Amino acid sequence: LSVAESASGLYEKLLGGDRRAAARLISMVERGDIAARAVLKMLYAHTGNAHIIGLTGPPGSGKSTLAGRLAGEYLRKGQSVGIVCVDPTSPFTGGALLGDRVRMQELSADPEVFIRSMGTRGAMGGLSVATNDVIDILDAFGKDYIIVETVGAGQVEIEVVQYVHTSVVVTMPGAGDEIQAIKAGILEIGDVFVVNKSDRQGTQSAVADLEMMIETAPGGDEVCWKPPVMCTAAASGEGVEELIETIEQHADYLRMTGLLEQKTEQRMKAELLNILDLRVSLAARKALDEEVAGKELVRMMVARQVDPYSAADVMVAYLLERAGGEEL
Amino acid sequence: LSVAESASGLYEKLLGGDRRAAARLISMVERGDIAARAVLKMLYAHTGNAHIIGLTGPPGSGKSTLAGRLAGEYLRKGQSVGIVCVDPTSPFTGGALLGDRVRMQELSADPEVFIRSMGTRGAMGGLSVATNDVIDILDAFGKDYIIVETVGAGQVEIEVVQYVHTSVVVTMPGAGDEIQAIKAGILEIGDVFVVNKSDRQGTQSAVADLEMMIETAPGGDEVCWKPPVMCTAAASGEGVEELIETIEQHADYLRMTGLLEQKTEQRMKAELLNILDLRVSLAARKALDEEVAGKELVRMMVARQVDPYSAADVMVAYLLERAGGEEL
Repeated sequence: LSVAESASGLYEKLLGGDRRAAARLISMVERGDIAARAVLKMLYAHTGNAHIIGLTGPPGSGKSTLAGRLAGEYLRKGQSVGIVCVDPTSPFTGGALLGDRVRMQELSADPEVFIRSMGTRGAMGGLSVATNDVIDILDAFGKDYIIVETVGAGQVEIEVVQYVHTSVVVTMPGAGDEIQAIKAGILEIGDVFVVNKSDRQGTQSAVADLEMMIETAPGGDEVCWKPPVMCTAAASGEGVEELIETIEQHADYLRMTGLLEQKTEQRMKAELLNILDLRVSLAARKALDEEVAGKELVRMMVARQVDPYSAADVMVAYLLERAGGEEL
Repeated sequence: LSVAESASGLYEKLLGGDRRAAARLISMVERGDIAARAVLKMLYAHTGNAHIIGLTGPPGSGKSTLAGRLAGEYLRKGQSVGIVCVDPTSPFTGGALLGDRVRMQELSADPEVFIRSMGTRGAMGGLSVATNDVIDILDAFGKDYIIVETVGAGQVEIEVVQYVHTSVVVTMPGAGDEIQAIKAGILEIGDVFVVNKSDRQGTQSAVADLEMMIETAPGGDEVCWKPPVMCTAAASGEGVEELIETIEQHADYLRMTGLLEQKTEQRMKAELLNILDLRVSLAARKALDEEVAGKELVRMMVARQVDPYSAADVMVAYLLERAGGEEL
């Protein structure tokens, strides 16, 4: 009862614009505190208003600085912004800001901005679930734009970026190798490409490379939105206004074509599947690590008396037997 | 019945050393063909003899060339080798060899080597499951050493490398930024560090950087194995023999301390959990995409009438209702 009370209390405060309530709920999500679920369930009806922007690309391309510039520009236009930094390589979570985030720290003093770093430790193995929860919280909290910055271009980041509305892939001059290495996965998720640090040498050839990749990408003919390649120098702010205009054009395109709803549907499905996976994983891991039957199953696998597929059959039966719903 | 027959036929052939049978089973695994499970279940009792070596590190560090050199050296010593290339950014699978794998192509003509590239497309979203299956197949097929090369350093690769016996992290001179970017995740999984392309400038400072990171890594005092930093020039073969000796020392260390069994246990658990996750995901995704109840659930989420957590509750109940075991 006291949990239910504080859940609805938190819910009311959050909808009333209380930043500390939002921060508290996000911390609960990061800790994997299941008491957060009750609030998330209530908040959900208030989501769906924010435009979600993804920023991804190789380390060193200046994504953080660009995120800060974008946020600053949105604020100047009278709009509110949330920033979520997703870093699966970092154990840090919560308020932890990475080294070059001085501008972000300045920004975070602004009441219209909300910045949060997500690492792996806090999210209890469910980084995708936690990230989507935080996006939902910031959305319900009334942010007009939510910028999801991911570090690196691994599977988790690509996964997360698939759920955003406009995916901006950031690179820089001279990052040719990195682009080559990631292009297979990255090309497919980019709605807008940015060559940042465009005051450096090699910008034109980086732009040309990207344009050629986009031109020759499979399936490129079937879509009406051809990802533009833009230049920014986030450190000085050059090109940021044009980038915002392009993001706006992409948002219009999504609305006009019905793709926005399709993307939303995709994200909802992914959220559900991620939550489901996490629950099953946690329940199964707990059984294997802590329960007699689970430990015995592991012992038999190590002794090669049971194979992993048969063990999975046993585990399914075991989880089903116990599951009243709450356990999973 | 014909499936059961061909399963046991495939099993017999594979244990008899038939390469084409092994290739066929691996292709089935990559396609997500559930008929492979029957064979995998039988094969499992014959696993546990191979030493599994992981090779991970930033793109361009020469992992493929090093894998080829290691394999060549093992062959020269009269041992058999399997190589699995895991590339989550690539849609390719099966026999697909990456651009710079000329040496690998030469190697693959040798009957004592077995090379396989794993991409995302074939593995049906279960790259970890498929990779572990392929490792088990090569193990049962009698390979003495299995080299698992991963491309990049994302979450999937780190996951996969956690299941190997000896994890070799490969970098190169001048890759400082990449090391910084990945060190949080990579340091913890490295048993041996290699500065490849050691004929280039900057090798000594790369070695010094790595040694300092290892020295200052948290928890470093508690373990008896201090990861050595080695130099190789895979293109010429320099340092490869020393690397093999170090891998042997690490294998001895694992056996003597009982850590080998602990690692095996960890891998078994992970295999089971990955299989379980994949089954639940596939069953749930199928329900959401193809079944009336699932589609209705998605529609209600998009309309913000049901939140993802409540939807997950519904889905758990739905899957339970249908599940006789085989469905999951």
